[in-house]
Amino acid sequence: MKYQGQIVDHRYGKAGVRLLRLDRSAATHRLFEATVQISLEGPFSEAYSAGDNRRVLPTDTMKNTVYALARRHEFDTPESLARLLARHFVGTQEQVEKASVDVAEKPWLRHADRSAAFIAGGEERFTTTVVASAEGESVSSGIDGLVILKSSRSGFEGFPRDEFTLLKETDDRILATRLEARWDYADAANVDFAAARGRIQTAMLDAFADHDSRSVQHTLYEMAEAALAAASEIERIFLRMPNKHYLLARLEPLGLDNPNCIFVPTDEPAGMIEGTVERVSA
Amino acid sequence: MKYQGQIVDHRYGKAGVRLLRLDRSAATHRLFEATVQISLEGPFSEAYSAGDNRRVLPTDTMKNTVYALARRHEFDTPESLARLLARHFVGTQEQVEKASVDVAEKPWLRHADRSAAFIAGGEERFTTTVVASAEGESVSSGIDGLVILKSSRSGFEGFPRDEFTLLKETDDRILATRLEARWDYADAANVDFAAARGRIQTAMLDAFADHDSRSVQHTLYEMAEAALAAASEIERIFLRMPNKHYLLARLEPLGLDNPNCIFVPTDEPAGMIEGTVERVSA
Amino acid sequence: MKYQGQIVDHRYGKAGVRLLRLDRSAATHRLFEATVQISLEGPFSEAYSAGDNRRVLPTDTMKNTVYALARRHEFDTPESLARLLARHFVGTQEQVEKASVDVAEKPWLRHADRSAAFIAGGEERFTTTVVASAEGESVSSGIDGLVILKSSRSGFEGFPRDEFTLLKETDDRILATRLEARWDYADAANVDFAAARGRIQTAMLDAFADHDSRSVQHTLYEMAEAALAAASEIERIFLRMPNKHYLLARLEPLGLDNPNCIFVPTDEPAGMIEGTVERVSA
Amino acid sequence: MKYQGQIVDHRYGKAGVRLLRLDRSAATHRLFEATVQISLEGPFSEAYSAGDNRRVLPTDTMKNTVYALARRHEFDTPESLARLLARHFVGTQEQVEKASVDVAEKPWLRHADRSAAFIAGGEERFTTTVVASAEGESVSSGIDGLVILKSSRSGFEGFPRDEFTLLKETDDRILATRLEARWDYADAANVDFAAARGRIQTAMLDAFADHDSRSVQHTLYEMAEAALAAASEIERIFLRMPNKHYLLARLEPLGLDNPNCIFVPTDEPAGMIEGTVERVSA
Repeated sequence: MKYQGQIVDHRYGKAGVRLLRLDRSAATHRLFEATVQISLEGPFSEAYSAGDNRRVLPTDTMKNTVYALARRHEFDTPESLARLLARHFVGTQEQVEKASVDVAEKPWLRHADRSAAFIAGGEERFTTTVVASAEGESVSSGIDGLVILKSSRSGFEGFPRDEFTLLKETDDRILATRLEARWDYADAANVDFAAARGRIQTAMLDAFADHDSRSVQHTLYEMAEAALAAASEIERIFLRMPNKHYLLARLEPLGLDNPNCIFVPTDEPAGMIEGTVERVSA
Repeated sequence: MKYQGQIVDHRYGKAGVRLLRLDRSAATHRLFEATVQISLEGPFSEAYSAGDNRRVLPTDTMKNTVYALARRHEFDTPESLARLLARHFVGTQEQVEKASVDVAEKPWLRHADRSAAFIAGGEERFTTTVVASAEGESVSSGIDGLVILKSSRSGFEGFPRDEFTLLKETDDRILATRLEARWDYADAANVDFAAARGRIQTAMLDAFADHDSRSVQHTLYEMAEAALAAASEIERIFLRMPNKHYLLARLEPLGLDNPNCIFVPTDEPAGMIEGTVERVSA
Repeated sequence: MKYQGQIVDHRYGKAGVRLLRLDRSAATHRLFEATVQISLEGPFSEAYSAGDNRRVLPTDTMKNTVYALARRHEFDTPESLARLLARHFVGTQEQVEKASVDVAEKPWLRHADRSAAFIAGGEERFTTTVVASAEGESVSSGIDGLVILKSSRSGFEGFPRDEFTLLKETDDRILATRLEARWDYADAANVDFAAARGRIQTAMLDAFADHDSRSVQHTLYEMAEAALAAASEIERIFLRMPNKHYLLARLEPLGLDNPNCIFVPTDEPAGMIEGTVERVSA
Repeated sequence: MKYQGQIVDHRYGKAGVRLLRLDRSAATHRLFEATVQISLEGPFSEAYSAGDNRRVLPTDTMKNTVYALARRHEFDTPESLARLLARHFVGTQEQVEKASVDVAEKPWLRHADRSAAFIAGGEERFTTTVVASAEGESVSSGIDGLVILKSSRSGFEGFPRDEFTLLKETDDRILATRLEARWDYADAANVDFAAARGRIQTAMLDAFADHDSRSVQHTLYEMAEAALAAASEIERIFLRMPNKHYLLARLEPLGLDNPNCIFVPTDEPAGMIEGTVERVSA
């Protein structure tokens, strides 16, 4: 027997398809820039085991499809673009059983009151994943890369200690993270995605700011609760909050005190805190 | 009711813990450099919902533990270091139900015949994940970031076409990828991990080189089969092979032919091909 | 003779010193985050040729000095921090003939009206280089990493063509760049650096927006002129403006038109345009 | 008067032009992959000040020229490709007074004895800059990104101390750097560039390994001398050697000793040491 294995799971697609749509239909121009990733599942095992390409729609075609559908159709959110694409592949390609489309929008800000001049936003991205199949469609959306910091109302105390624990308890530290949030829509049929995202982001940032944090975990939960309260459309939210440590600079050996004044930003190592909070039915 | 949600999934730990162990016990020095990530699961929900830190071993302690155990114990592979750490957290911290430890080794090459001078290897990393819990222990290992290219015996033909398909069929193209491989050990108790990795890597590279490729999928499967054949210790292998496109430069408009001579390397977009091949029992 | 060469130029220092200063003296907190680089010149040739370290102040000491002076002194701009440091090294280390200090500030934005919660700004950095020596002191400042785009009033026509020229003339294209600006202060003694920077940045962005661009070069010059007009404190400005191409997606083969609607953002290759504009004395 | 400034320095060109040339003229294939940057100088001031593009050869044409000349001509080193391009722009474009061409080759390694399968090398690049003008031509070449480490024969003692000096003297530390080297050819007419580079690289690495280092400066000089001795073709060499610190892990608080065994690799801050060593005429 030549072969000893069988393929038990597989998918393929195209990643890193970059797109800018410029809308000049009104005097005030609008930009939509995003990176798209497409992943298809279906009965492709013969492509792997026998080199049979008869069901393998080229990934180059997927790329072309992004640009063509973006030209043909209206869309105003990552979700609507992802939905167009996911439905297209399931709807037009018989062999495709499931299509997953990720869209990450990169925000641009308008310069002053100019109609046609823009400044790139920061590192945050507005993300979505739409999965379409014969069983239906799911939409999850999120925010990634939002770097936030609070300089009061944050401590970490009362933790257990073992032989390798050196950390001092503190009731006053800097808390900073690079937030990744991802929420699931209960029913995506009639959602105003941009409005929901706006409410969720504001709620999370306000909670982050106003909360008396006992740990990253504690703040994560508070932010998740605030998101659920702000958007009844969502049923679940996942947050990942790396603890981007700002270490107090050790100034005593230099003959100086340091009353939470001078810090050393560090990228690694980082604490890594995750949690999913689900809405409890009434 | 203040809260509308409950935490249904959570974990926390430390990422990006970097370590170099220098072994000067023999005249010829040896280096082991790696980045470690630790993730713990257990009954931590009160930390999230109530800010109760009594079960939250600090992530700073996890970092210290990496350095302390690396000093105290012998290890010679990413797997043995990860196992030391995973067992430690499950074994010494009552509240820890599951510990996952990732280790990614960065290889160094010896300069000439020198006993104490080294040149950094390339981008490839030798990876492992050890998961320990009361139910036992699993070990998966892999290679990440290995960039390979073949310049003959690669085509892509016979694929379906739709209205957005422009790609030409070809029986001669460059095939390049940044390989990510991950295999599962059936029984990790008595494995020589370094030897197994060596056999798997050689088998995959030989298959990549010698195979007549009809697609990335086809080559992926051939490489997975070669890995299974080379290492009876493993029961399953996952491969992710982005298609790093080398596009034929368009020289005709410049009045020149281009018989597979001049290419434009591109990073995005990239095809993205994945598959898991599992050993079939005899 | 053992040696065949002599050292003709040399310098050393510390790069990548990261600092956050948190000012909680008022109810509304203020952050200053920056990365510092220090480079010293002097009679260090014996350190190179003979391993004589008697004049080599450790780079670890330079790092400590950043934190110590940031604690000891008041400063409110990258320029004032850089000046503190440059003067320190020239003033306290007899062997230092010239000290160059670069400071790159990473901006933080306040969240809503919160006194102690912040969101990281984008990729732009507020930069400065202060050079101090016995001959005196120079200050140059700038902005780096500011990504801007204009979606009207930009063309490129009338250029020469040779046998390899395929580019079509256009009177309507997207113009985008990642601006790097650096200006020299004529006399840095009594400058309000933050105010000057603000005027220069606004003037450059307004010029970018309002200008009818015939090329990147043309726009660069207009922006430089606007900066000189807005800040009489400066005598010269250097701008580097890579042309971040947004290529019109080729939709004709897909049976679609593309009236400047769908673009493909590309990172490489990039046009690279530079120029220095100097104030003409009256 | 509208304008207050004049343009005093300017250049423009194309960066990030990526190329792979595949040579299948023999049974054993050969790859040459590189990134090219072109920068032109000449009487372009009217393009800046008046938007006059009549002398502005498009940067898109420069990109096309890279691919066209790579197809038309033979070349086997970064230097020969850069020379082809620099001479082309000065020789065919009347308005170009000076052309600078940078080529950075990314090495590929052959897999085993295979004729057509390759593994990407590490991060090092083989670099060159050729500058052509009416006055003639200069060639400088180098290596960038070569990460090296020595684990014996390295110390740092006898340095001066000030109030902020905490560093301990040591006669045994890890020394690691990411080498950037750049040398100037005295007369580039008949140089075998690949052979010279090979001799220089080997000489520098051997010196790095075999030298008793008192500081990075000391080692830099030794490596520069070795390069000058190994290649009579070159008259000068510049080295930049960031001190990539491997800090001894602080294990005493954990109750463990650390006899140069466990280190923490850190990327920032980094010492930054530079020097140029020039051949002394006999």
